[in-house]
Amino acid sequence: MTGAAPRRRGRPARKEADTGPGARERILEAARTEFAERGYDKTSVRGIAKAAGVDPALVHHYFGTKDEVFAAAIEVSFEPANVIPAVLGEGTEGIGERLARFFIGVWESPATRAPLLAIIRSAMTHEAAAKVLRGFVLRRLLERVAAELDVPDPKFRAEMAASHMIGIVILRYVIQVEPLASADPEDIIELVAPTLQRYLTEE
Amino acid sequence: MTGAAPRRRGRPARKEADTGPGARERILEAARTEFAERGYDKTSVRGIAKAAGVDPALVHHYFGTKDEVFAAAIEVSFEPANVIPAVLGEGTEGIGERLARFFIGVWESPATRAPLLAIIRSAMTHEAAAKVLRGFVLRRLLERVAAELDVPDPKFRAEMAASHMIGIVILRYVIQVEPLASADPEDIIELVAPTLQRYLTEE
Repeated sequence: MTGAAPRRRGRPARKEADTGPGARERILEAARTEFAERGYDKTSVRGIAKAAGVDPALVHHYFGTKDEVFAAAIEVSFEPANVIPAVLGEGTEGIGERLARFFIGVWESPATRAPLLAIIRSAMTHEAAAKVLRGFVLRRLLERVAAELDVPDPKFRAEMAASHMIGIVILRYVIQVEPLASADPEDIIELVAPTLQRYLTEE
Repeated sequence: MTGAAPRRRGRPARKEADTGPGARERILEAARTEFAERGYDKTSVRGIAKAAGVDPALVHHYFGTKDEVFAAAIEVSFEPANVIPAVLGEGTEGIGERLARFFIGVWESPATRAPLLAIIRSAMTHEAAAKVLRGFVLRRLLERVAAELDVPDPKFRAEMAASHMIGIVILRYVIQVEPLASADPEDIIELVAPTLQRYLTEE
């Protein structure tokens, strides 16, 4: 600390913690929690800023609008850099099982389940959130997976595989219908893996 | 019209139209429209009664609570008497394609799509609606389908088949991700039918 920095005109002074390298991550963390706990409607940039201990202007500065904060907050869950190697790293042999295992694994962990539930619920009920999911995330991820496939209409195939996993998630974790809600994850993976394998690799 | 009927104590007089055989159907029709247009939260027994042109007491008399009106309103869409013959009428040979065709057909029709969307959206965001879907509908329908199957763990199999169809519906009609949103229904049926067939018939 070498004394106060000179104030710039038109921009409020900030504490150092506000603009440090940790601020961006704290905002994203706060945004995930806020969207998960309050839902899309009731979450505001102001509320996210408060939870992260920063000025709302900083949230706008880093991310822009509420939609853009939402996109950034959920992007990590669908980050191609995280998903692609786990699923496609070893080529398309066994891809059905790896995809099923990765997807179920993410949902079995309570830490990742809560924000994902918030995303799905928001996208089901708010066009703005659906648009974010469609544009920033699903398309980006599906296109990357589809690019690795050697089947006719690979994007359609990748989406059909995704649809099955999403349906399982909804019946198991959201609506919680038995016996699927209490089924052993391995039983789900065993049944669904050949389906995904067929969609992603067979003509 | 032979003059006014004697008033019974403790019960308001009703116009004839209120209690005629058409009243029950009008209430259900109004309930489906209200739940579809307003969502689960904002729909009330009073609002349904007003839309049907009857006294709220009659809605309670026929159906009970708001949850019970919801259950009755959506039951038609999942009525085993309607679904089972269409899907299981010809045994399990070709059941995968018939199930896929029936399900997509119901969703391709705008008249049945709107109330179904309302059901799914409500069940995703309100535990009360999820409970209704779970208890009255999915269980009842899935158990009937499962009873016809000759596979290990038939309820689990029937639910896994249902999960795929529900996932397709959500990506295609709710979140509207391309290319699935604009895909030819026949292409969906062609890809998914063998999956459903395997789940419902193969050990």
